[in-house]
Amino acid sequence: MKKRMDDDTEEKTIILPGPKITKENEVSFIKYCIILSLAIGIKSWQPLAIAGSKRPDGTYSWNKTTMVILVEFSKLVFCAIVFSFQYMSTDPRKRHLLHNLSFNQSLHFLIPAVLYGASNTLVYIGMSYINPALFHVFGNTRILTAGILYRIMMGRKQSDLQWLALLLLTAGAIMVTPLSESTPKEGEDNFLGLIILILMCLCSTSSSIYTEINYKKTQELSIFYQNCVLYVYGIIVNLIWLLFTDSQTVSGQGIFYGFDRSAFIVLLAQSSMGVSLSFIFKYLDNIVYVFSLTISMFISAVFSYFFFEFEFTLIFACALVVVTVSTYMYYRNKVFEKYSIQDKDAFF
Amino acid sequence: MKKRMDDDTEEKTIILPGPKITKENEVSFIKYCIILSLAIGIKSWQPLAIAGSKRPDGTYSWNKTTMVILVEFSKLVFCAIVFSFQYMSTDPRKRHLLHNLSFNQSLHFLIPAVLYGASNTLVYIGMSYINPALFHVFGNTRILTAGILYRIMMGRKQSDLQWLALLLLTAGAIMVTPLSESTPKEGEDNFLGLIILILMCLCSTSSSIYTEINYKKTQELSIFYQNCVLYVYGIIVNLIWLLFTDSQTVSGQGIFYGFDRSAFIVLLAQSSMGVSLSFIFKYLDNIVYVFSLTISMFISAVFSYFFFEFEFTLIFACALVVVTVSTYMYYRNKVFEKYSIQDKDAFF
Repeated sequence: MKKRMDDDTEEKTIILPGPKITKENEVSFIKYCIILSLAIGIKSWQPLAIAGSKRPDGTYSWNKTTMVILVEFSKLVFCAIVFSFQYMSTDPRKRHLLHNLSFNQSLHFLIPAVLYGASNTLVYIGMSYINPALFHVFGNTRILTAGILYRIMMGRKQSDLQWLALLLLTAGAIMVTPLSESTPKEGEDNFLGLIILILMCLCSTSSSIYTEINYKKTQELSIFYQNCVLYVYGIIVNLIWLLFTDSQTVSGQGIFYGFDRSAFIVLLAQSSMGVSLSFIFKYLDNIVYVFSLTISMFISAVFSYFFFEFEFTLIFACALVVVTVSTYMYYRNKVFEKYSIQDKDAFF
Repeated sequence: MKKRMDDDTEEKTIILPGPKITKENEVSFIKYCIILSLAIGIKSWQPLAIAGSKRPDGTYSWNKTTMVILVEFSKLVFCAIVFSFQYMSTDPRKRHLLHNLSFNQSLHFLIPAVLYGASNTLVYIGMSYINPALFHVFGNTRILTAGILYRIMMGRKQSDLQWLALLLLTAGAIMVTPLSESTPKEGEDNFLGLIILILMCLCSTSSSIYTEINYKKTQELSIFYQNCVLYVYGIIVNLIWLLFTDSQTVSGQGIFYGFDRSAFIVLLAQSSMGVSLSFIFKYLDNIVYVFSLTISMFISAVFSYFFFEFEFTLIFACALVVVTVSTYMYYRNKVFEKYSIQDKDAFF
């Protein structure tokens, strides 16, 4: 479960303990729908919130590193609370195993913390060049980077359909990147935005792979404790980065300089996404989540059209089709496995 | 075999007798390559020849119906020759079965002859609005129309991947149809071209389906005799149409009016395609042929770029990727079946 999650989300995910809904206990259909709507809603909201906080020239009034630190901190608090619950409910004789991590071992989290911090900062930099609709389409390149990195670094093979899905995904992303557009909107540069989001996906996936390799060495450790360590290192690394890059403004105006209402909306959106992911994964599953992301892509496109003067072209519609089909192709085997569908059942 | 061929080619195909290469007798690799190159070459040449015969305003100096009649006639001659060979090599006691078709039964070929004639005329009308590169991309909509018509009229089900392949194909065709292009070249109208080629595919597929239903009633009949009957009716129908639409010019200047060098090149390209298809199907097979069509698509695009001032955009490149992937998806099952590939073997 953990392995898969890291492939598919750019977030380092907190996994809540408890049985999966489909197996042991049935959650009512209404509850399921609410959580699904929540997942779709938050994911659609995320890029819109960031876009709403952009100034006309594409920059932000607040410091990006400060934002990353605050989001990390809110997730750290949440994760610490969940860990304490886990700690209390564990057999006292086994409790020490949950947090049995030497300082030297913990240093292994420094590398993913740096990569993860970089990836989180790149979200804001990337979003400053593109609109929310493109953010989702480009964001799907994480499937591409994950596929390639896992192939190279972990030797994980993929089916012909999955490789072709990645090719389609690339085509879909390129289609909506008008390189030679004559009059781009002020502050927009789709190509640069794509490059930055690809970098973001590379950082995020490398971080996941590093954690995954590392995780095998520390299997009895609580995942919440690990996440806490990761967040603490993340906060430290980002604080150092903040002092290094923006110490003057921060020492003069405090770390919250430039935090207006829209900045707090971004903080809320980012934190609630980080925190909610664990609930989503507890009650939904990875496949359902991936498809809810696709739905979010369409919702963000519609909202971008109404609120960010995004021009909804025929090419963009085609790209949505291509990206959606490629997502289906990529996860088809997993879906068929999960719902025990045979190839011969899929004839219409 | 016959059934499949009709799905995939807009041509009414003459099938040569003789064993398939892969089964009984091995043809040398070089011979195989020559025939494959021939298939690709002729298919790439076809739209280029027609485009080369267009006047700047998109019309032709020659009469389209005359061209159809001449192409039909050359195929009739070829088919009659092959039939006579078949007739000679058949047991004299069974010979009468090869051409045992009453006049009333033969009238059933009138409907496919009309549809087939219409489809062949629509090629020239469609080509007058678009360039050879688009002709190939749009021409792939025949997979779409065949899929839908066979589903509705013959109840032939398709897999999820096949339906999605059709969706992708549609997206690919739409992508390269710039509806709102500000300055289309003189005589070009991509949207109209697409509509006409879809109509062409509908006529051609309906004709195939009608023949297929009809064929079940006359199974012992020689396919060459059937094709001859079909061509004769086709020529009659087109002659009536020619007299009806263009009798004045024809009676004044003869049916060959406007036939210049480029017109004879078109005649040669069209006839050789019709005739060569039977050789191609004898030595290659349907799947190889379908993929050779995809290669032709790329070749035509390159030639269009050099000879017809076709602008090779990033979107067109994406569309080629999308159309190619969708072709693979559509025929994946057949390919896997043919080469006995298991799903688990297709991991890279």
